[in-house]
Amino acid sequence: MNVDGVPYRTIWLADDGETVEIIDQTKLPHAFDVAPLRTLEDAAQAIASMQVRGAPLIGGTAAYGMALAMKTNPSDDGIDHAYDTLYRTRPTAVNLRWALDEMRAALRNIAHDARRGAAYRKAAEICDDDVEISRGIGRHGLALIREIQKKRSPDEPVNVLTHCNAGWLATIDWGTATAPIYMAHDDGLPVHVWVDETRPRNQGASLTAFELGHHGVPHTVIADNVGGHLMQHGMVDLCIVGTDRTTAHGDVANKIGTYLKALAAHDNRVPFYVALPSTTIDWTIGDGVAEIPIEQRAGDEVSEIYGQTADGRLETVRIVPEGSPVANYAFDVTPARLVTGLITERGVCAASREGLASLFPEHAG
Amino acid sequence: MNVDGVPYRTIWLADDGETVEIIDQTKLPHAFDVAPLRTLEDAAQAIASMQVRGAPLIGGTAAYGMALAMKTNPSDDGIDHAYDTLYRTRPTAVNLRWALDEMRAALRNIAHDARRGAAYRKAAEICDDDVEISRGIGRHGLALIREIQKKRSPDEPVNVLTHCNAGWLATIDWGTATAPIYMAHDDGLPVHVWVDETRPRNQGASLTAFELGHHGVPHTVIADNVGGHLMQHGMVDLCIVGTDRTTAHGDVANKIGTYLKALAAHDNRVPFYVALPSTTIDWTIGDGVAEIPIEQRAGDEVSEIYGQTADGRLETVRIVPEGSPVANYAFDVTPARLVTGLITERGVCAASREGLASLFPEHAG
Repeated sequence: MNVDGVPYRTIWLADDGETVEIIDQTKLPHAFDVAPLRTLEDAAQAIASMQVRGAPLIGGTAAYGMALAMKTNPSDDGIDHAYDTLYRTRPTAVNLRWALDEMRAALRNIAHDARRGAAYRKAAEICDDDVEISRGIGRHGLALIREIQKKRSPDEPVNVLTHCNAGWLATIDWGTATAPIYMAHDDGLPVHVWVDETRPRNQGASLTAFELGHHGVPHTVIADNVGGHLMQHGMVDLCIVGTDRTTAHGDVANKIGTYLKALAAHDNRVPFYVALPSTTIDWTIGDGVAEIPIEQRAGDEVSEIYGQTADGRLETVRIVPEGSPVANYAFDVTPARLVTGLITERGVCAASREGLASLFPEHAG
Repeated sequence: MNVDGVPYRTIWLADDGETVEIIDQTKLPHAFDVAPLRTLEDAAQAIASMQVRGAPLIGGTAAYGMALAMKTNPSDDGIDHAYDTLYRTRPTAVNLRWALDEMRAALRNIAHDARRGAAYRKAAEICDDDVEISRGIGRHGLALIREIQKKRSPDEPVNVLTHCNAGWLATIDWGTATAPIYMAHDDGLPVHVWVDETRPRNQGASLTAFELGHHGVPHTVIADNVGGHLMQHGMVDLCIVGTDRTTAHGDVANKIGTYLKALAAHDNRVPFYVALPSTTIDWTIGDGVAEIPIEQRAGDEVSEIYGQTADGRLETVRIVPEGSPVANYAFDVTPARLVTGLITERGVCAASREGLASLFPEHAG
């Protein structure tokens, strides 16, 4: 997407054809810095320090990390060492393992001196494939926005509410929940996005607001508490959120607080859509509330907030009294009954076993 | 309530019998400072700068402000000047006007040299009456907690979720939503409170956590996004929140985000109670969602956060990108259908016209 008129992806090859470049997302939204990755260690460090985050982008960075490793050590040991080094950075990230497996499979049975070129090609392919998935989600979601806009006067915006960052910064380009929004905007449909701040890590206020703003999409940041009020007053036309994991029954695990917005949407008859690449569907489980374990993260994510002072310094401030315990559940599960539909790269379906089977018959039964 | 073992109210007379003392709430939770009010101007400044906040405490401070004014100018002009000076500090605060009207009526028709003594007595009475209202709410709410606890093993805590600060710091003592919690704790019933952070002004994380912690009540601070997840997993036994305004039909206007918690409580069959002094019932309106105007406040309450750095400095940091618009709706309305009951100083009733009429027959019909 654009950053002040210049098109970017989240990861790309520099002009030398070897160095990998990323946006240092730890600096957002206060600074837009491009960081070079020249070695395997640079790539591992970028993932571990969350300069890159979001499942698809972690996968893409790991793939390029393997390519960087092949420059200096294209041996079998080199492949194994790179795999292990990258895997250790975020061991619970499903896409990370998938990308590393893809890379290893592509490199293992070819000559050592062909591995470097093959690795760069495969990493580029993994990234391009992800962009195509986002594009597919965008096209199918765009049709939903277009339907709503048709019933409006031409300049009346469609109001979309989103939670957290399922934006292009979490993928290679376009994003998942944001892909339909960017496509609508680029097509000249008027859209306006309500951006949930998304406490405790504020990915909405920092990342989603940043990317929408710099691409030129009208948006307004709100506290997570506000969405229900907006829906009661007809100020939201549809919700689109992302997901970390969707069950075979259509239950959706996503950033904590998603469930509350789904309840408000249901109570006010606002359509609530979840955008997802089909790779995040877990076909092995049904009841998400009962079966998906919810990660608890460090309490200081809640008790401390990072931001920029008026004179430009970056500071962390504590907002909870010393001695008050804090709990930090990172995700919640939205039951399928509250989800209007799932927007996948193959189309939109009901959030149910039958709905998913209609688009993904190879997994049904 | 206690602050580290010492009992406090939020406003009291100093040992000299003249100076009024308050807790400077702008310093909480990072410092507990007592501030003296020696003049009318001190009292007006304390209200305007939000050193005191919460409707009952604003009323009590205004009452004592009139008393301070009578020390130096007990004339009719002195009464009018004090009234106007105090009224201008927070003109939309209903309790402020009510307290000032009470004071003026008590002073107007007595001799000038009797006004100073009468004003101090009347201000003390207004404060004591508020404490009795909180005590009444506490007693009736305590019975609800006791009922839940009876079905438990003796040491298994009752988990209460609350939003914002309807605590003793917002009143003279006990609070409204917190009064049943303090009474349960003081009676030896095991209670644990989930404290919603309450973005954007963080009154839960700063004030409610402070007061519960310093009184010794077990509690855990959570992001506003978390409550739904907790209720899905049986980790909340009941919700108790306060209210700024309740309609004659039982709709409840309270801090933004209350509606989302009420939806989650309803979806998970968790009782959702609202604690209120009957003075906050607006008998003239029925449909709260349609009829209660919702205040919009400055966007920098959302985009900037105030807290303490690791080395003890107080800093304000920006968390939203420069140029991203922000909306800041301060309240929302929870429809009566989502409210299990209203806890008033006269007892607990259904959130309905009939329920309210059963406790307040003088307003029915």
